[in-house]
Amino acid sequence: MSKISNVSPLAPDQFPKMPSVAGVVLGTAKAGIKYKNRSDVFVARFTKGTQAAGVLTRSNVIGAPIEWCRQIIDPNAGMPSARALVVNAGNANVFTGPQGRETVKATVSAAAKAIGCRQKEVAVAATGVIGEVMSPDNIVASIEKICASDKSTGWKKAASAIMTTDTFPKGAWAQTEIDGVPVRICGIAKGSGMIAPDMATMLSFVYTDAAIPSPILQTLLTLAVRDSFNAITVDSDTSTSDTLMLFATGQADHDPINRAGDRRLAAFRDKLRDVLMDLAHQVVRDGEGATKFITVKVKGAVNAKAAKRIAMSIGNSPLVKTAIAGEDANWGRIAMAVGKSRETIDAKKLRISMGNVCLSKGGAVSADYEESMIADHLRGPDIDIEVDVGVGKAEAVIWTCDLTHGYISINADYRS
Amino acid sequence: MSKISNVSPLAPDQFPKMPSVAGVVLGTAKAGIKYKNRSDVFVARFTKGTQAAGVLTRSNVIGAPIEWCRQIIDPNAGMPSARALVVNAGNANVFTGPQGRETVKATVSAAAKAIGCRQKEVAVAATGVIGEVMSPDNIVASIEKICASDKSTGWKKAASAIMTTDTFPKGAWAQTEIDGVPVRICGIAKGSGMIAPDMATMLSFVYTDAAIPSPILQTLLTLAVRDSFNAITVDSDTSTSDTLMLFATGQADHDPINRAGDRRLAAFRDKLRDVLMDLAHQVVRDGEGATKFITVKVKGAVNAKAAKRIAMSIGNSPLVKTAIAGEDANWGRIAMAVGKSRETIDAKKLRISMGNVCLSKGGAVSADYEESMIADHLRGPDIDIEVDVGVGKAEAVIWTCDLTHGYISINADYRS
Repeated sequence: MSKISNVSPLAPDQFPKMPSVAGVVLGTAKAGIKYKNRSDVFVARFTKGTQAAGVLTRSNVIGAPIEWCRQIIDPNAGMPSARALVVNAGNANVFTGPQGRETVKATVSAAAKAIGCRQKEVAVAATGVIGEVMSPDNIVASIEKICASDKSTGWKKAASAIMTTDTFPKGAWAQTEIDGVPVRICGIAKGSGMIAPDMATMLSFVYTDAAIPSPILQTLLTLAVRDSFNAITVDSDTSTSDTLMLFATGQADHDPINRAGDRRLAAFRDKLRDVLMDLAHQVVRDGEGATKFITVKVKGAVNAKAAKRIAMSIGNSPLVKTAIAGEDANWGRIAMAVGKSRETIDAKKLRISMGNVCLSKGGAVSADYEESMIADHLRGPDIDIEVDVGVGKAEAVIWTCDLTHGYISINADYRS
Repeated sequence: MSKISNVSPLAPDQFPKMPSVAGVVLGTAKAGIKYKNRSDVFVARFTKGTQAAGVLTRSNVIGAPIEWCRQIIDPNAGMPSARALVVNAGNANVFTGPQGRETVKATVSAAAKAIGCRQKEVAVAATGVIGEVMSPDNIVASIEKICASDKSTGWKKAASAIMTTDTFPKGAWAQTEIDGVPVRICGIAKGSGMIAPDMATMLSFVYTDAAIPSPILQTLLTLAVRDSFNAITVDSDTSTSDTLMLFATGQADHDPINRAGDRRLAAFRDKLRDVLMDLAHQVVRDGEGATKFITVKVKGAVNAKAAKRIAMSIGNSPLVKTAIAGEDANWGRIAMAVGKSRETIDAKKLRISMGNVCLSKGGAVSADYEESMIADHLRGPDIDIEVDVGVGKAEAVIWTCDLTHGYISINADYRS
């Protein structure tokens, strides 16, 4: 589908060596939904009592899997019991009408039967082409095959089975503790644009052995997503299928947790955010056509919302992103993107830096700035933009990638 | 600056044969601000009593010319008397600090002196590089040279003098009447992205011999801009320097007009909108790298604002724009863009058509649709997208262009 099959130049050196999570069994199979000779169905099974939380796309146009998940995941209380997650790559099952809903029903039913659980304990997600009806037969057969074995496959195989235009599998993990008891957080993700709805979507599934009730899990996930997955953008487009879920198997032997603000959760909260941040950054690093990983920090804003909007205005500007692709310290375009956000700023106090070099301040180019001062920074793969808008103390950081010929090739040329 | 210097494939066959407007004298000169061997300064002089209106960029980061125009143009009452307009190309005079304001002051002062008018009767605009201080000397000399002659140059020369990355000069005109008296509306424009702040910006100047007081002119312009210049997008970026002005010399011998709703203005309002629409479309047709002119019509929305937001969400989606560039009837991406707008829609009633062929309805692909049905339409230069979101009766139309390798080349490659 894409002419660009090489691994992104921004990819990590290797998939991390991730440990198992007690109470989670991973399995993959080759259903041949779209791709040949690779796994394209992933099933995670969970021990009884597993609690779950989920954050789903806020788009008004959604696929049948999202319809199902919206039924079983309460945005305030999460999913009170989760026994299985079934994900397929190659067909997003979006805009497929009643037949699409039948496929989800058959998938959920097959998993519930194989595991011996209720249907509402089975979460589903899908990524791939839109508008093509998918027969449930191959997925159902794959589920039965996977569930016939209790042996867990590795994280890398699981992460690889959910890839579409991704150029590398994405995993991240952390070890932390709750009340002195060690717990693990392990996650995988896929995505290489915020969306390319006929082939790509952002999916991420995170697992922990911590014992945390689903309403608290839901709160923790919602907070952690704000500064991680909701602070990245590749092309400003939002998928019909974006899904992030967190499963807690409760196998760790710590005392019960009764509220999200519990001090014993402080380290867990930090590590959860770190894992989500790592996965989110990997999605940006696999951005379609990306050659630069860009961090945009905005400070001096009137409030956090304004800071994030200004940062997103910069991160989504095609002219800023093409300038970075061209290794051009074009601070004029950054100033333009700040201005078009329409948020409160003081243009006379505006300060724009790249790679810790101040390019512009006080409404004009910085007196001692010369392009040679940041030439090395611009040639590197990691670009830092910092803007102080001079009116307050609020800050925000977002991450994006550059806009290159590669993006056009992936998204415009593949039919030619 | 750009490697792509050929005329846009979407350009009109030729510059229109436009008539003069009584009370307007046009002049151009070669100031050598940035470009060599071409005119880069344009001065329009107006007869005493000329009324004017203006719509300026709403960006919070603006150039010194916009600062000046915000002082002399009341957003409710317009400009009570206009005697001159001075425009330069090659330097936008943005982020140039106190020196930038001095240059504007010298420009205004020179024009006022040459014409014998007050400074606040002189409007200014500029387009070009950001952050480079521009000496006023060459502009002042050009103004003096231009004002030494009373002979008016042609519209094409004026439109050419304000070009930057534009590949063709843009003009449009109409003949209409007020109260039986013939009047003319003649306009020029420049722009080839909504912005590329170090080289491009949208400027447009329209002239009429009608006798309309500035507060009424301001109302007419504000209304007409909504469905023309504010309904186009090339890359979603907004300039620090966007300026649209309308000058009415009052040379037409019709009875006084006292309110914008006057029925005698009906034909004038229509023709004004037509001229602005024509100029706005030419800007899109000269969009950086554009190979397709795209009309996006949204109907069935709850209100006009929602309809326009959905249309803009489609028109600004990089994935929709790259799909059109690839001549791909990717209605899934259109559905995605509808969904991400977060406006009220009924996905089950959503109907997506291209070139009058229904691709998707009722939440699934259209039963009798085959790609061959719109292959010819997609290969052509004019693409029509129509979406019915199924919840109301409001409509909106916007215009955009495709996103191609040409856009990346113009904006990322020019330094390499």
